[in-house]
Amino acid sequence: MKNLPVFLMGSGGVGRQLLQHIVSCRSLHAKQGVHLRVVGVCDSKSLVVVADVLTAELDDSFLLEVCRVKSNGSSLQTLANSGVCQVFSGPEVIRKVIDIGRLGKSTGLAFVDCSASAETIGVLNQVVDFGCCVVLANKKPLTVQMEDYDKLVSHPRRLRHAVGAGLPVIASLNRIISSGDPVNRDIGSLSGTLGYVMSEVEDGTPFSQVVNAAKSHGYTEPDPRDDLGGMDVARKALILARLLGRRLNLDNMKIESLYPEEMGPDVMPLEDFLVNGLPLLDQKIEDRIKQASANGNVLRYVCLIDDARCEVGIQEVPKDSALGRLRGSDNVVEIYSRCYEKQPLVIQGAGAGNDTTAAGVLADILDIQDLFP
Amino acid sequence: MKNLPVFLMGSGGVGRQLLQHIVSCRSLHAKQGVHLRVVGVCDSKSLVVVADVLTAELDDSFLLEVCRVKSNGSSLQTLANSGVCQVFSGPEVIRKVIDIGRLGKSTGLAFVDCSASAETIGVLNQVVDFGCCVVLANKKPLTVQMEDYDKLVSHPRRLRHAVGAGLPVIASLNRIISSGDPVNRDIGSLSGTLGYVMSEVEDGTPFSQVVNAAKSHGYTEPDPRDDLGGMDVARKALILARLLGRRLNLDNMKIESLYPEEMGPDVMPLEDFLVNGLPLLDQKIEDRIKQASANGNVLRYVCLIDDARCEVGIQEVPKDSALGRLRGSDNVVEIYSRCYEKQPLVIQGAGAGNDTTAAGVLADILDIQDLFP
Repeated sequence: MKNLPVFLMGSGGVGRQLLQHIVSCRSLHAKQGVHLRVVGVCDSKSLVVVADVLTAELDDSFLLEVCRVKSNGSSLQTLANSGVCQVFSGPEVIRKVIDIGRLGKSTGLAFVDCSASAETIGVLNQVVDFGCCVVLANKKPLTVQMEDYDKLVSHPRRLRHAVGAGLPVIASLNRIISSGDPVNRDIGSLSGTLGYVMSEVEDGTPFSQVVNAAKSHGYTEPDPRDDLGGMDVARKALILARLLGRRLNLDNMKIESLYPEEMGPDVMPLEDFLVNGLPLLDQKIEDRIKQASANGNVLRYVCLIDDARCEVGIQEVPKDSALGRLRGSDNVVEIYSRCYEKQPLVIQGAGAGNDTTAAGVLADILDIQDLFP
Repeated sequence: MKNLPVFLMGSGGVGRQLLQHIVSCRSLHAKQGVHLRVVGVCDSKSLVVVADVLTAELDDSFLLEVCRVKSNGSSLQTLANSGVCQVFSGPEVIRKVIDIGRLGKSTGLAFVDCSASAETIGVLNQVVDFGCCVVLANKKPLTVQMEDYDKLVSHPRRLRHAVGAGLPVIASLNRIISSGDPVNRDIGSLSGTLGYVMSEVEDGTPFSQVVNAAKSHGYTEPDPRDDLGGMDVARKALILARLLGRRLNLDNMKIESLYPEEMGPDVMPLEDFLVNGLPLLDQKIEDRIKQASANGNVLRYVCLIDDARCEVGIQEVPKDSALGRLRGSDNVVEIYSRCYEKQPLVIQGAGAGNDTTAAGVLADILDIQDLFP
C-alpha cells in the first residue's frame, strides 16, 4: 500500500468537501493500492497537526469533525481538547506549516491549497524548495508576479492545478504540450455566471434583467460587479497563457469590464447599480448582439489566448461553434493546435461547485502518487 | 536529466510518426528534464535493438532511417548493415523482445505497442510481469478475454492507453474514477467514418450515396463494411466499459451492423454490395431518421455504456446535445456522473489520424516518467 501524506490549507467549502471525498474513497483507494494520510489542516488562523508528521495521521472521524466544526463557523482551535493532535494559532501557524513542509523531503508530502488566499504563495514556494508536491484549487498563487510564479512551477511534475473546477483542461493542455503539439489558440467561456448572462441576453432578455435575475437566483457574487468586472476570468486566462509559455502578468492583460468605471463599487452603491446603473447598459449590449447576429455570430464573454493576444472580454464567435452553442452555466474551452487545426479539441462541462472542484483536487493528488517513495 | 528507455512494437504509420515526434521534441523534452532513449523497434517480422539495452540507444538519424526504410515498404532487416544495432528475424524476434523486457525491471522500460495486432498480448503480459510499463496505441490487447485483460491491467499506474486517437478520454475517465465520482452513463460517437455517414444522411442524402462518396474520398476502409459492421466502435466501447469496471467480452455485447448478414463480405462481393446492396438499405434508414426527427431527435451511431447496457449501434439522441450537434468526422464523448449529472462532461475533437494518435502516445509516455528511477 502506497502511503501519500497530505497537508490541507483551507477548510472552506472546497477543503471540507475534499476531506469528505478522501474519507468516502477509502475503500476505492485501498483497491488502487493507495492510502491518503492526512497529517494536518490549517486555515488562516489555526493549525491542527499530528504529533509525528512522518508516521501518524488524523483519523477519519477526526477529519469529519474538522468538517463539522468549520461548517458551524467555529474555530479549529475548538479541536484542541480532543487530544489527538497539536493545535497552533496566530503567528505560530506559518512557522509550524513550514516545519511540516521541511519534513516532506523524506516521505514526500502533498501540500493542498484549497484556500482563496493570495497569501499562500510564500509558504508554497518554501515547501516546493523542500521537495514537497503542491496541489492547488486556489488560483491566486498562479497569478502572482512572474518571479514567484517561476519558483512555484520550477518542478512542474510536482505541481497540479486546475481551471474550471474539475474539468480536465489543465491535464489535457499538459498532455498536448508534452507531446510537442503547439497550441496556437485557446478560447473559452470560463465563468458560469457570465456564460449564463450571455446566453440569456442572446435570447432577448435585457442585460439589466438578466443580471438582477442571476443575482436573485444566487448565480452571482453578492455584488455582481465581482463577476461582471472579468477579474476571475482574467485569472484563469493568465494561468492558461502562462502554461502555454507566455510571460505575462495580470496588469499586462486586456480585461473588458461589463460595467464602466463610473459604476464601479467605489463610486456607486450596489443598490443604485442594480436599479439605475444596469439599465443604462442594456442598449449598448443589445446593439452589439444585433451586430453579431448580422455577421452570423453570437457574443460570448471569453478568454482568448493566441500568438498575439491574451485577453478577456466579449467576442463574436460563430453561432455553430462549441462556444456559440453554449447554453446556461457550463464552461467550455476550445483548443487549436497542429493536431486540432480546423476543428478544435473541445472540453465542456460544469466549471464550478465544491463537489466537482474537490473531486478534481483529489484526482490531482492521486495523479502525483508515483512521485512518492 | 531523467532517462526513459522506450521499446517500440510496430513501425506502421503511427509508430513511424511517434519516432518522428520523439526526434522533433528533443529540445522540448530536454527543457522538461526528460530524455527518451529508444532502445529498439520491431515489427511482426524483424527486430532492431541496441547491443546494450541498459545504457545505449538508437540515435536520431537511425530512428529517421527506420522511418524511411519502413515507409518505403522495405524490411527492418535492411538496417543490419548499419552496424549500430543488432537485427533479428523470424521466431527469434519474440524471444529477444521478451529478453529486452526482462531487463526493464532495473531501469524501467516503456513498451509501446503501435501495432494493430491481436498477437502482442502474450508479450505484453510477460513484460508487465517483469515490471515494465506499457503504452498502447493498439486497442486489441485491451479487448482480449477477461483473464488476459486482468493481467495486462494488473498494475494500472504502469499502463496507458487511448480511444479516439489523442483525445483525453481515458485520461479524463481515470481522473473521474480515482476521485470516487461514479460514472453512470458514457455515450459517444467514436467512429469518424460513421459520424460522417450519420450527419450526411441526416441532411437528406441517401445512405447508399453517402457510403459510396465516403469510400471514394478515402474516409472508409477499402471495404466500407469494415466500418459499417461496428466492430471497431465495439472494441472502443468494450475498453471504456472495462475501465468503468464492467466485466465483459466482445461476444457479450450488442453490436448493431448497418448492413444485414446476407450482404456480408463472405456472401456478397464488394462491388455488388456497393452498387446493389446498399440502395436496398436507404429506405429503412430514411424512415428511422424521420421517426427520430418527429421525436425532436437525430440518429447517431454510438457506443452506450450505462448501468444496464454496453452496446453499439444507432440511437436517437437529442438534437441539441453535444452528440446531436456533432457534424463531420469529429469524435465526441459525453460522460455523466455525480459531478456531471444533468449536463455531461463533453470531450470532442479529431479522433483519428497518425499525427494525433502518435502525439497521444507520446503524451502517455511522458506521463509515466515518475515511475522511472
